[in-house]
Amino acid sequence: MFRFLRVNMTTKSCVFEDIPAEYAGLGGRGLTSTIVAREVPPTCTPLGPHNKLVFAPGLLGATNSPNSNRISVGCKSPLTEGIKESNSGGQPGGHLAKLGILAIIVEGMAEEGEWWQLELGKDTAKLVPSPLGGLNNFDAVAKLVETYGKDCSYITIGRAGEFKLTAASIAFTDRELRPMRHAGRGGVGAVMGSKGLKAIIVNPEGGKNHPLHDEQAFREASKRFAKALTEHPVTGKGLAEYGTAVLVNILNEAGGLPTRNFTCGQFEGHEEVSGERMNKLTKERGGEGAVAHGCMSGCIIRCSGLFPDTKGKLISKWPEYETLWCFGPHCGIDDLDLIARFDHMCDDFGVDTIDVGVAVGVAMAGGGIPKGDGKAVLEAMQGISDGTPLGRIIGCGTATTGRVFGVRRVPCVKGQSLPAYDPRAVKGVGVTYATTPMGADHTAGYSVTANILGVGGKVDPLKKEGQIELSRNLQIATASVDSVGLCLFTAFAILDVPDALPAIVDMLNAKFGWSLTGDDVVTLGQRILSTEVDFNRRAGITEAADHLPDFFTDEALPPHNTTFDITHEELKTTFNWIK
Amino acid sequence: MFRFLRVNMTTKSCVFEDIPAEYAGLGGRGLTSTIVAREVPPTCTPLGPHNKLVFAPGLLGATNSPNSNRISVGCKSPLTEGIKESNSGGQPGGHLAKLGILAIIVEGMAEEGEWWQLELGKDTAKLVPSPLGGLNNFDAVAKLVETYGKDCSYITIGRAGEFKLTAASIAFTDRELRPMRHAGRGGVGAVMGSKGLKAIIVNPEGGKNHPLHDEQAFREASKRFAKALTEHPVTGKGLAEYGTAVLVNILNEAGGLPTRNFTCGQFEGHEEVSGERMNKLTKERGGEGAVAHGCMSGCIIRCSGLFPDTKGKLISKWPEYETLWCFGPHCGIDDLDLIARFDHMCDDFGVDTIDVGVAVGVAMAGGGIPKGDGKAVLEAMQGISDGTPLGRIIGCGTATTGRVFGVRRVPCVKGQSLPAYDPRAVKGVGVTYATTPMGADHTAGYSVTANILGVGGKVDPLKKEGQIELSRNLQIATASVDSVGLCLFTAFAILDVPDALPAIVDMLNAKFGWSLTGDDVVTLGQRILSTEVDFNRRAGITEAADHLPDFFTDEALPPHNTTFDITHEELKTTFNWIK
Repeated sequence: MFRFLRVNMTTKSCVFEDIPAEYAGLGGRGLTSTIVAREVPPTCTPLGPHNKLVFAPGLLGATNSPNSNRISVGCKSPLTEGIKESNSGGQPGGHLAKLGILAIIVEGMAEEGEWWQLELGKDTAKLVPSPLGGLNNFDAVAKLVETYGKDCSYITIGRAGEFKLTAASIAFTDRELRPMRHAGRGGVGAVMGSKGLKAIIVNPEGGKNHPLHDEQAFREASKRFAKALTEHPVTGKGLAEYGTAVLVNILNEAGGLPTRNFTCGQFEGHEEVSGERMNKLTKERGGEGAVAHGCMSGCIIRCSGLFPDTKGKLISKWPEYETLWCFGPHCGIDDLDLIARFDHMCDDFGVDTIDVGVAVGVAMAGGGIPKGDGKAVLEAMQGISDGTPLGRIIGCGTATTGRVFGVRRVPCVKGQSLPAYDPRAVKGVGVTYATTPMGADHTAGYSVTANILGVGGKVDPLKKEGQIELSRNLQIATASVDSVGLCLFTAFAILDVPDALPAIVDMLNAKFGWSLTGDDVVTLGQRILSTEVDFNRRAGITEAADHLPDFFTDEALPPHNTTFDITHEELKTTFNWIK
Repeated sequence: MFRFLRVNMTTKSCVFEDIPAEYAGLGGRGLTSTIVAREVPPTCTPLGPHNKLVFAPGLLGATNSPNSNRISVGCKSPLTEGIKESNSGGQPGGHLAKLGILAIIVEGMAEEGEWWQLELGKDTAKLVPSPLGGLNNFDAVAKLVETYGKDCSYITIGRAGEFKLTAASIAFTDRELRPMRHAGRGGVGAVMGSKGLKAIIVNPEGGKNHPLHDEQAFREASKRFAKALTEHPVTGKGLAEYGTAVLVNILNEAGGLPTRNFTCGQFEGHEEVSGERMNKLTKERGGEGAVAHGCMSGCIIRCSGLFPDTKGKLISKWPEYETLWCFGPHCGIDDLDLIARFDHMCDDFGVDTIDVGVAVGVAMAGGGIPKGDGKAVLEAMQGISDGTPLGRIIGCGTATTGRVFGVRRVPCVKGQSLPAYDPRAVKGVGVTYATTPMGADHTAGYSVTANILGVGGKVDPLKKEGQIELSRNLQIATASVDSVGLCLFTAFAILDVPDALPAIVDMLNAKFGWSLTGDDVVTLGQRILSTEVDFNRRAGITEAADHLPDFFTDEALPPHNTTFDITHEELKTTFNWIK
């Protein structure tokens, strides 16, 4: 029942393959990273025919486990030039799993200027010419729904992916067929664009949940896991009520909310762009707005509310904390409605909100966009879809924008922009930014938990002590969570509720007939990270790249006036099991 | 008499320093690379305060040796993120040497937005506020001449350097006080701009030629060297008559003239942009035009003619072959007058003609500039000075332009664009592009000699045999030549006239009282390359970066239909003395 699907864009062949033995026990990120590491020449041009784009649901995909239907996308990144796994919610992950497709491997390249779409159904896969070239995600999905109906789910790229901009994302439709869930980071959309693949249609008809080795044991473990999620204040209530935007006021209070291109850790307009305000406005305005909305089947956390305008019409999903931050405090903008419009533009054009939002603030620092000028940002953003030079610059993300505008203080590691936590005031996440093989990425090892939220223990965010160990353990655990297909937010419960991790292990054992222990989860995480680091080294990305830009060590951040004082030598001990 | 000058842009201090013993025997590139390797943290932000900008004349500076007054500029490159030496003709190299300044080390950083200029005279050095901010090179130098007179020489940056564009150059005035000689490659002008240093005024008054250990021996050796240069057909006649543009027809004939972004090795309009035509038009038009004009005192090769418009007014110096190529065949343009205007714009705004010209052709490939449209190129080029988004993109060079316009076929190695010789038809230079620590650079090991010109032996340009050894030997020799302060074009004579190299060695021995042999020249070259490679490795640039973009191995080049078939593993043997 379980197979890989290999899609060759040069020859247009679609072949189902038995899964080679060496991939046993891998799913999600574990699978995408292992396939990329084995099949992609590490020094190849990321936008050329030798790169491959891999889609993989997680190990617990197509089960009744809560929050387990995420999908991983892997390739060599055109943004970082290293290995990339970017994952997303939405419906396609679960649908692919139900069809028994554990990985789609897209290789080769269509003729330049041609667009194709991949039709997937039970035991069928076919590339057909796509009529969607030139459309952004919302229009593209609308046409796909017209053609293929409401029971399918859709994976698409917008204009940014067509232009092969290095911050281009891949969109996944949510339960209501909106392309609002994205594999955002690392320019995976540019790789899809480079191959000439505009869309994937996933028809789940005839698909089914995976067989379970021990149905009864699975059901019990799944219940325990659901209980843990429901009981924890963050996953049980906080995220549903305020979305990830709950973090705005918390990070501001902690002095770690990077403001105006990382010159201060607090923003005077934080209340205006906070989760509390978003919740209040959503309720007041009503209409198409919604609090506590999930992005995929089986989600019980429901962080993804819907934000209406003053007339009740949907502007966008609730922007994530990172999106609110980069278009808000980072740009000196405190207009929630405007930021929601930027979020919608990112979803529609298909770009990473973080790398583009940070780029906009960096362009402001370099004189390319007037500081704090929302109208100018709207115009610049529209340029992403229109293909203007400025639009293409910011659509290529922060590193390119910093270079073009001659900016010295460019908040990037390995070419990928830092997210919404200043590493001088949240030092554990600074270790993650510096060392993860993904380029700066909070989700790779979310030390904000113990640094700020008091989840999974407490580590003083302003001191260097304990940060490397904290980040190491979280990076290992995250690599496993990303392989299981679980939403990363389940980690809040995993870190605090003693029974949560055993419940996950029990689900895996009950599904596959394995006898994993908690230690095996650690081993799996280490193995994935080792694979990723090894690919990067072969691609030419060494430990020399494992550090933050100079200004984080040179300049003290108000209000705590701390610098990032964990040395490069110390950072090199993070992956202490790798020679 | 001989000292380093250390200029701190943060504190505005200018301090003369005795030369530490470890720098004995080094000049030019040997000195800049060694200072950068010792003093610059390899992972620092190139446009930040930790980078340093080093200027150094060569070992034979301030002597009566022919063609020995070039100047090296070193730093960590914002273009390649590795070590950089870029060198230039013009007057300042000789003037600095006469003042006994063997290296200027510029460090720190002025306040953003401030511009300073450095006044240098006999035993004096002073930073003063510069009134030149916002001016391009020609206007800046005109103002400097007004203030400081015609006996000084000047080092300046244009708007591109002020904008810190990564293809920004540093201009050096020629004998007629025109800022037409440039340290072009690697974005050294952006580093000067990042420091807030707009200009250096070199007043040679009171300076003098260096004392000679054995005056008589020096004079004799110098005569022998001049004889070798005069006797060789290239240095004695060809370059004076046609400039480096003599190569247009030769490379076209060889099928190695990269046309329309490296899709063909021959250009139908080659005659229109050839050295022969440039010579003919220069003679016909008269006026300010000139054949056989030298860029610096002591030059007897005189390759740098002056190109007049139809009314006899100077458009620019004779564009170099590489400039003619990148704005010509590479862009599908065959208008010599237009190309000379582009050359002038590059000189005036202060950008590398190669990285910008190649960028223009790559923008054409990506739809950012209409193909072959000279008028559109003029507008785009003007944008470099005006700071438009498109101008800034191309002003950042080829790699950035390729990224912004989503181009797959981007002819760069280590972020620096390939010059005017297709590595599939001139394979020896392909080895140099791939392996030099400078990023793709023909001058680092000009295998065109034996591959195409029959200088220094013959190695079939289309076969892989012998290319690595050829490039290795030339890279070693070049590192030495760049340290001696000799114009690289002297290499034509060095390779063919048996007495040329002994004459150089004899000049060095006679000047310094050394007892070098030819072998020591090899050892010096190896030592410099080792230092540069080591810096790069510490900066995170490994052997993994020593290869050409995929399309050179994937696509056969007409008319010979050859690919670049020297493997990455083979390329790694180039620096076979480095572990």
